[in-house]
Amino acid sequence: MSTTISETNPQPVKLNKGGLEGVVAATTAISKVEGTAGRLIYHGYNIHDLARTTTFEEVVHLLWFGHLPSQKELADLKGKLAADRTLPAPVMEIIRNLPKTVEPMDALRTGISAWGAMTIKGKPTIEQAIAVTARFPLFLAAFHRLRNGLEPLESLPELDYAANYLYLLTGQVPQEKHVKGLNSYLVLHADHGMNASTFTARIVASTKSDIVSSVVAALGSLKGPLHGGAPSKVLDMLNEIGTVDNVEPWIRTAIVQGGRLMGFGHRVYKTEDPRAEELREMARVADPQEFVLARRVEELALSLLDELKPGRRLYTNVEFYSAALLSSMGLSGDLFTPTFAASRIAGWTAHILEQVSNNRLIRPEADYTGPMDTKFVPLNQR
Amino acid sequence: MSTTISETNPQPVKLNKGGLEGVVAATTAISKVEGTAGRLIYHGYNIHDLARTTTFEEVVHLLWFGHLPSQKELADLKGKLAADRTLPAPVMEIIRNLPKTVEPMDALRTGISAWGAMTIKGKPTIEQAIAVTARFPLFLAAFHRLRNGLEPLESLPELDYAANYLYLLTGQVPQEKHVKGLNSYLVLHADHGMNASTFTARIVASTKSDIVSSVVAALGSLKGPLHGGAPSKVLDMLNEIGTVDNVEPWIRTAIVQGGRLMGFGHRVYKTEDPRAEELREMARVADPQEFVLARRVEELALSLLDELKPGRRLYTNVEFYSAALLSSMGLSGDLFTPTFAASRIAGWTAHILEQVSNNRLIRPEADYTGPMDTKFVPLNQR
Repeated sequence: MSTTISETNPQPVKLNKGGLEGVVAATTAISKVEGTAGRLIYHGYNIHDLARTTTFEEVVHLLWFGHLPSQKELADLKGKLAADRTLPAPVMEIIRNLPKTVEPMDALRTGISAWGAMTIKGKPTIEQAIAVTARFPLFLAAFHRLRNGLEPLESLPELDYAANYLYLLTGQVPQEKHVKGLNSYLVLHADHGMNASTFTARIVASTKSDIVSSVVAALGSLKGPLHGGAPSKVLDMLNEIGTVDNVEPWIRTAIVQGGRLMGFGHRVYKTEDPRAEELREMARVADPQEFVLARRVEELALSLLDELKPGRRLYTNVEFYSAALLSSMGLSGDLFTPTFAASRIAGWTAHILEQVSNNRLIRPEADYTGPMDTKFVPLNQR
Repeated sequence: MSTTISETNPQPVKLNKGGLEGVVAATTAISKVEGTAGRLIYHGYNIHDLARTTTFEEVVHLLWFGHLPSQKELADLKGKLAADRTLPAPVMEIIRNLPKTVEPMDALRTGISAWGAMTIKGKPTIEQAIAVTARFPLFLAAFHRLRNGLEPLESLPELDYAANYLYLLTGQVPQEKHVKGLNSYLVLHADHGMNASTFTARIVASTKSDIVSSVVAALGSLKGPLHGGAPSKVLDMLNEIGTVDNVEPWIRTAIVQGGRLMGFGHRVYKTEDPRAEELREMARVADPQEFVLARRVEELALSLLDELKPGRRLYTNVEFYSAALLSSMGLSGDLFTPTFAASRIAGWTAHILEQVSNNRLIRPEADYTGPMDTKFVPLNQR
């Protein structure tokens, strides 16, 4: 796509790279991604300050309300989230009607859509943001248990978001280290500037549609492998490599034969993704033994890429150690992207609320490349 | 939003108006909207040439394959669409589980999501486009009959898309004039450049997500009243006005008191929407008696807007006569937007296929307006 003069705007807008790269599509006070510096900010706070010590609920409060909660505000928000951990019977019936082979992302999309159809009306509100966020783990865990021939469980009110999610999946009160690891994961994935799913959510909200329509749309974007849909492939790659001894020959062959290394490269970051740094440390703590292989793969991939494809400058992305971390908690690969969604729902809803608070329909233009003035011939003469 | 220098692109991209107005977001050969000239082109053909003589299936063929079909190609496409008029039992069960009070747009979103979860895998294909398009009327009619206490019907293979939709809703083979009117409506709404729902569909497709995730997302956008969600409000307005005598005082009061006139104004068209011109004529033919009131409202609204709000230059949009036309066929107001969707699905799927044929992730940037370098204080000190 080259320099284009649009029809209703006399000023030329340059889109040299396509895909709206480098084009500012909205203003936001929710998060900032600094690609060159490798920095991620959630409403003023550096992600490194939040990653290891705050819980998901604290970050949700930050994204929705613009400040980290006091202890009282946090208790309040946790109480509201816990109170919303219910699914109406007809919604549960719809989840039961889904075949076991359905992808969890599709089950989540369908369940949320059905729940929204039955319960959500009018302009997006913070109460709706709480209601939809609280239910993400419920849909996922209910479908996951049903597909394994198990009955869905009731939430435990004393457990926070991360712990309750693990409990609903497994039926066991989770170990502290898993809760801590999942909390860090959820904090790190909660928002990330104008990524494709967040942008999708904002466009839908900009038409004055409802919050669930926006969230359902965002889920569709996140599902795509170029966005959130590929972290389990990192695991597949690590499993295929298998042993530390096999790392170098495997990666060398992959690079030389043009195969794809999973978990490297990002559109915006031109240096290490600050989330990858945090996730590496979490993965190391979570499973030191498995970490050895992943770390070896990372080191060799980066050095061999540098040797064999000089100038490409790829870095480890957020998917690489997410896979190792989530796997250490016993999550199956097809729950990785849905778990990403159970975090990003915080950012999506924050962006939806921000969009509707000062709305203008997001409606770009297209550069038409088709024919003009084609002569019409009626069907009976074709 | 003012002039902004994005972080990864050294060139400033001007977005003076916000909402990506005037920004070219993609190239397309599917349709072209000329806002100043008031012209709409479907892959070379002027919409006026298509509106009254072609059927929906011919236009679908044009949008998907890039040329109007020969008689043989048309018969072929009709055969494929007709063969896909089936819903699996578990999908029908899910529609039955939706309460009768659910909005038809939400029922459609949920039904398509469930159907896609069970049947669609992999990269979008033309076969999938046929499969999803063929099923739109089935979901809508099934839900509509169920909410009215009636059993869903089987499609009649001898009926085309428009006629079969009316049959599935009413249980009666429709009158020729209604089939003709609906065909024109479907042709006129099948595509419209980079509108919000089409843009939504393309973004989701650009992540390499599946066709149903894209379509479900687009449905969420179309539902918004700033996009496709408000045509029934035109009908409400006409009903409220009631008589020809009441038109002038009603509109004068509405304009003076800052109330909203429904069915006027469009982001892109700076003159009459060419579709409105066609729909006006269709509405006149469909119900000459009801037309008198609508036409009087249009004439007076435009002249009073000119008198009382000089310089605003509003024109009748596509929603104004759509309402009158769809109403003349016996469609209830809450089926207007879903019927719009049953047309636009052709454009959405064409754009999804175009997007994936030469894909780049659509991922813009944001202008961050929040705080920076906020000092982190742990929870126990807050």
